[in-house]
Amino acid sequence: MNPSALDSLIEALRCLPGVGPKSAQRMAYHLLQRDRSGAQRLGDAVQHALQAIRHCQRCNTFSEAEVCERCLSPRRDPSVLCVVETPVDMNMMEQTLSYQGLYYVLMGRISPLDGVGPRELGLDRLMARALDGVVKEVILATNYTNEGEATAHYITAMLKPKGVGVTRIARGVPVGGELEYVDSGTLAQALRERKSCSG
Amino acid sequence: MNPSALDSLIEALRCLPGVGPKSAQRMAYHLLQRDRSGAQRLGDAVQHALQAIRHCQRCNTFSEAEVCERCLSPRRDPSVLCVVETPVDMNMMEQTLSYQGLYYVLMGRISPLDGVGPRELGLDRLMARALDGVVKEVILATNYTNEGEATAHYITAMLKPKGVGVTRIARGVPVGGELEYVDSGTLAQALRERKSCSG
Repeated sequence: MNPSALDSLIEALRCLPGVGPKSAQRMAYHLLQRDRSGAQRLGDAVQHALQAIRHCQRCNTFSEAEVCERCLSPRRDPSVLCVVETPVDMNMMEQTLSYQGLYYVLMGRISPLDGVGPRELGLDRLMARALDGVVKEVILATNYTNEGEATAHYITAMLKPKGVGVTRIARGVPVGGELEYVDSGTLAQALRERKSCSG
Repeated sequence: MNPSALDSLIEALRCLPGVGPKSAQRMAYHLLQRDRSGAQRLGDAVQHALQAIRHCQRCNTFSEAEVCERCLSPRRDPSVLCVVETPVDMNMMEQTLSYQGLYYVLMGRISPLDGVGPRELGLDRLMARALDGVVKEVILATNYTNEGEATAHYITAMLKPKGVGVTRIARGVPVGGELEYVDSGTLAQALRERKSCSG
């Protein structure tokens, strides 16, 4: 008995991740009853983003320009390429303030269960990017999940034979982490990859 | 370092209830990366709903017509008016299949903490609706929360002196409920409002 425009809105809201029928209904009612100006902004922003946003041709992240600002920056070191799964991960790397190289954003990970293989992930474009002759080292910063690990292995196997240096970010006890609360897999890895103490 | 159209989209998504900065970011990335057609549908549906949907002049629920289908139905009993807080509550009442009267949807509840008083809730419109000369009984089906109770009390005080019958849906042990798991307030109420057994 809902008006059809309302049903369409509820249905459309369900395309958002984590939004089921109940939440979608609550969201639609909220937009129409409490926040029509917010709804207007949302509608406009979606339309505008769809028109304006594409992928940077070099690093594959979201960008309004053909090549994003970061890739164009003369301050970044073009000989190091950090591979991450998502733009969020790239932001996390930037927040460390300890990386000056460039990025390649996979926009996903190899995940056979979801039907995402090397081809779907567009790893050939990463290949072309990494073999531009300028990149000397590829740092794999995919997640330490099964999928992230599989992705890292695949990229390593792909790039190593081409003579590009490939490294993986370290795994170990988090800074501020207490051994008591660290899972045993992490601790085992931290033990195996122990470093000699300087000084 | 996000493109501005992306930042606008993330900001706009935050007008949805229960969506914070992290979820909004995840939603925006999902829409742009995984579901552009869904995003297009969402943008269109929001715009269309904003244009098409208004409030039924009689029952105040969302409607595309001036007066909604239910209010126009000759099958409903116009002498009974059920007051609910939201369209969801109205749907719940309909699902009981045991109500044939009409509705008035408050689109909220009296909630002084949120700055919603009788005036903001538009109780004068309910007043006009209930005193149309046809309505004989107003059934208050607001929630049994503090706000819902306050709203019911206020409406009762408003309508009783005008000679309209005002009733409140019963409170008690839910059907299928076990005494062991029912809260003591509900049980006390069920005891106080006990009915004589027939037969």
